[in-house]
Amino acid sequence: MVDQRKVGVLGGGQLGRMLIEAANRLNIQVNVLDAAASPAKQISAHEEHIEGSFKDAAAVKKLAESSDVLTVEIEHVDTHMLEEVAGQVVVEPSWKTLRTIKDKYAQKQYLKEHGVDVADSVDLEGKGVEGLKEVGSTYDYPFMLKSKTEAYDGKGNFVVKSKSDVDAAFEALGKRPLYAERWADFRMELAVMVVKTKDGVLTFPTVETVHEESICKLTYSPPRNVSENVAQRAQELAKKAIGAFKGKGVFGVEMFLLKDDSLLVNEIAPRPHNSGHYTIEACPISQYDAHLRAILDLPISQASLRLREPSIMLNILGGKTPDSHAQVAKKALESPNASIHLYGKGDARPGRKMGHITITAPTLAAAEREMQPLIDFVDSQKGKTVESRSKSSTKADALVAVIMGSDSDLPVLRAGLEILTKLQIPFTTRITSAHRTPDWLRDFSKSAASTSLKVIIGAAGGAAHLPGMCASWTTLPVIGLPVKPSVGDGWDSLVSMTNMPRGEPVATVGVNNSTNAALLAVRILGAENLEIRERLRVWMEGNEKEVLRKDQALLEGGWETYLKGMGK
Amino acid sequence: MVDQRKVGVLGGGQLGRMLIEAANRLNIQVNVLDAAASPAKQISAHEEHIEGSFKDAAAVKKLAESSDVLTVEIEHVDTHMLEEVAGQVVVEPSWKTLRTIKDKYAQKQYLKEHGVDVADSVDLEGKGVEGLKEVGSTYDYPFMLKSKTEAYDGKGNFVVKSKSDVDAAFEALGKRPLYAERWADFRMELAVMVVKTKDGVLTFPTVETVHEESICKLTYSPPRNVSENVAQRAQELAKKAIGAFKGKGVFGVEMFLLKDDSLLVNEIAPRPHNSGHYTIEACPISQYDAHLRAILDLPISQASLRLREPSIMLNILGGKTPDSHAQVAKKALESPNASIHLYGKGDARPGRKMGHITITAPTLAAAEREMQPLIDFVDSQKGKTVESRSKSSTKADALVAVIMGSDSDLPVLRAGLEILTKLQIPFTTRITSAHRTPDWLRDFSKSAASTSLKVIIGAAGGAAHLPGMCASWTTLPVIGLPVKPSVGDGWDSLVSMTNMPRGEPVATVGVNNSTNAALLAVRILGAENLEIRERLRVWMEGNEKEVLRKDQALLEGGWETYLKGMGK
Repeated sequence: MVDQRKVGVLGGGQLGRMLIEAANRLNIQVNVLDAAASPAKQISAHEEHIEGSFKDAAAVKKLAESSDVLTVEIEHVDTHMLEEVAGQVVVEPSWKTLRTIKDKYAQKQYLKEHGVDVADSVDLEGKGVEGLKEVGSTYDYPFMLKSKTEAYDGKGNFVVKSKSDVDAAFEALGKRPLYAERWADFRMELAVMVVKTKDGVLTFPTVETVHEESICKLTYSPPRNVSENVAQRAQELAKKAIGAFKGKGVFGVEMFLLKDDSLLVNEIAPRPHNSGHYTIEACPISQYDAHLRAILDLPISQASLRLREPSIMLNILGGKTPDSHAQVAKKALESPNASIHLYGKGDARPGRKMGHITITAPTLAAAEREMQPLIDFVDSQKGKTVESRSKSSTKADALVAVIMGSDSDLPVLRAGLEILTKLQIPFTTRITSAHRTPDWLRDFSKSAASTSLKVIIGAAGGAAHLPGMCASWTTLPVIGLPVKPSVGDGWDSLVSMTNMPRGEPVATVGVNNSTNAALLAVRILGAENLEIRERLRVWMEGNEKEVLRKDQALLEGGWETYLKGMGK
Repeated sequence: MVDQRKVGVLGGGQLGRMLIEAANRLNIQVNVLDAAASPAKQISAHEEHIEGSFKDAAAVKKLAESSDVLTVEIEHVDTHMLEEVAGQVVVEPSWKTLRTIKDKYAQKQYLKEHGVDVADSVDLEGKGVEGLKEVGSTYDYPFMLKSKTEAYDGKGNFVVKSKSDVDAAFEALGKRPLYAERWADFRMELAVMVVKTKDGVLTFPTVETVHEESICKLTYSPPRNVSENVAQRAQELAKKAIGAFKGKGVFGVEMFLLKDDSLLVNEIAPRPHNSGHYTIEACPISQYDAHLRAILDLPISQASLRLREPSIMLNILGGKTPDSHAQVAKKALESPNASIHLYGKGDARPGRKMGHITITAPTLAAAEREMQPLIDFVDSQKGKTVESRSKSSTKADALVAVIMGSDSDLPVLRAGLEILTKLQIPFTTRITSAHRTPDWLRDFSKSAASTSLKVIIGAAGGAAHLPGMCASWTTLPVIGLPVKPSVGDGWDSLVSMTNMPRGEPVATVGVNNSTNAALLAVRILGAENLEIRERLRVWMEGNEKEVLRKDQALLEGGWETYLKGMGK
């Protein structure tokens, strides 16, 4: 084993269970405080687990006695008890951090004090219904009414949409310690898992989270239609937020991406988090490995937190019938890239997290295509009308875009498009004139790199600015195909493409040689994709054989017969 | 859960343990027959495990009674006992298959009868020392003397190098049931995990296996310096071999790759195998998932058996001291892409399999670089002189080769090489004249695709055949950089590159514009590698800012001042 210390965990649900999966592989003993046969205990057979509730002081004490490091899978614990045992056992993250974070209002205030952008919020404890009305007039409607404590998966939250909602909101939550938050008009939600070690703060990649009925439904990594710049800023913000707290371990940081691309921290979890499940398959080190290493001061580096492949995670929730969730898991067995995690929980109450599925694939678009039937299945279980497929973003995952300045270039492109078809390269063809539709070309080029596209072929004649302008607006490789115009020999176009200024290259091929433009695209794809490279190799071999066959015919039949065969 | 049936497994070592890891995630109960606290039982807390030996008939019967499907983690079981219980419980793979395979001579005969290429072998049971000498004169020396049964990890094998070895060989193995095998003069060993389902035979990718003292030390997937064609033939051979047997589950097929690129099956294992450990991280579905699904008739498709990333597996063996293996695991914690698996075994006897490490990385070369320090560490523990790094295949992992027809092209290349350096693209520079060193250019080009290279830049002036000839001998994308010669303007070279015949494209950039040749190479790499693409984006952003800065200076200072600043 790499470490003799024993880790005690308050709570043995799915997070504890997945933490134990990681610990098992390192032969590190984890002592779980929870009910007998809780999910975590099922995969850890030893005599030192504690039976009881993580809210029971005596049980926590017992756990502390049998462990070297205490940690939590949930923040709704008695932090005073942790404070008490912190003298005899290491507690990570610090009980102080847990105390601040478990009170969401205190959490927000703390973040604000440390310069982290959060939505405006106001304390409503003891302020009654009048307090809510006051918030309505200051923040305007809608605003969020939230319980400071014991709030998760939408429980303890109320969206106050208008003045007429105020009474219902107070009725629902009035007995709890309340605060209000200004409505964040976000375009999507992002999340970042942060690792706090003895040496510093590291981050996993940014993910997009999709909630339904306030429960996390899906995560996408990388996020869809989000620039690298936004993703990086999300990581930086998450780092800043967690850097403000004491203690070690992983933290989940949920954020709003507003319509102006600015970011607000929404909520922090001082433990592994649903938005980090994808890391088990998608990263070299999972959030659970990272948590374990961080609290035990074992080595961990930022390089471990990269994305191996784009991934999508779908939660498996309890549904209408006791086996709804099992049906989803069964369906997922048919999905080639799906990793299925069932948590070994008992009753499948509607909305209860019973498991999750992670799909990783070479591109996010491919992962989306594979996940869509599972999303449809889950939605149809709920009686939701399944969105028509054409509306979803899962249409053909084109690797090559063939763009042309005019439809008059299309006949020249035929040979190249036939090659792409033959070699099974998914492609799309578009008309994007640099001079007649400059804005459309700009939009196309600017967004190309965040789609499934890997290479662009630009065909143009005359001034032939198309591939050059495209190259100026994208980081993808652009191939220039000069097209012979009705007047002139096409050298003008060729030179317009080769002579791009230093900075924005166009990979130019011969005039009208769309075959070579297509084959160059295939070579570029094949640089990384060995399956495509092999298809090209076989094609080239065929070409070679064809010429050798001709040579043999010429040798055997003589040049005169050969010419006759050619009809010349 | 996706399946209510209980799986009984004979043996609870590391293979059973990793099978349970897979079963736990699907909430499928596995009942283990082995000693208490055996590796598999440690991660499966329930009351239906059986304590005892998998060789004990009564215990096997008890396991059969509590399970719906029986399987094995080892073939050295009592197949007559399995035959007996096969009436009351499903046994997978079939006891008939286990019986044939556990006797290595019977296995070879069976394969031969089914048209599978194996080394020649001859029965030596009851033939005494004279039998061995006879083999020596028929097969010549060296030949392999093998025990038909209970042979693994080199135990029960003896390499009879010369006539003078015969007595020692008989002394060592004479009491066992023996056979001899003709020596296979292999250049490397390959292995393929095969999945036999109710519907057909599927294969995982081909791996290279490296043995040391007859124990598997390393696996490489894909294998090093092996063509796609050989890898495919290995999969086909493995499929054919396993197709000949009854029953479901995964099978390991170990093969010899001979010097003429032909393949022989060496040995078959009717169960998960050491050469398939890499699948846990490297494939969407591991060999353990596959075994479980195959024996339970759950869905499984060939698409699940792809390689997510190239990977290398290193076994962690018991070493000189009781904690040698723990030291290796600790060292691996520092390796960012290493997944560490410790098996929870007790005593670390020298050579005992205590765990393994899998590294996956975007390229095999990157995985090799990361694995090398661990191999060195293991070797130094054994007192082996660590090979000097320069001799190993882990030298700089060049992604781009910049080849030139003459050293006179080098000054033109400087700007491009500086860009590659700035954007941290590993590259190599070579002089390969198409006309003065045609054979060297051919050798270089033909082997390029099986190295770490992804793109080639060919710089040439005059006739400028270099990039075009290179493109004709490789499937990699080739960028042509026309170099202005002392006589002429370079257009001749440019045209020689763009006007390649249909079939072998050269991505041509402007005359002397090595900056763009380099940036095009970066774009091609960035098509798949998002990290490189991001570096390029930042660089382009810097370029844009620089021009905007100049525009501002021109606006503010006026054109005359500006010209003065330029010294013009």
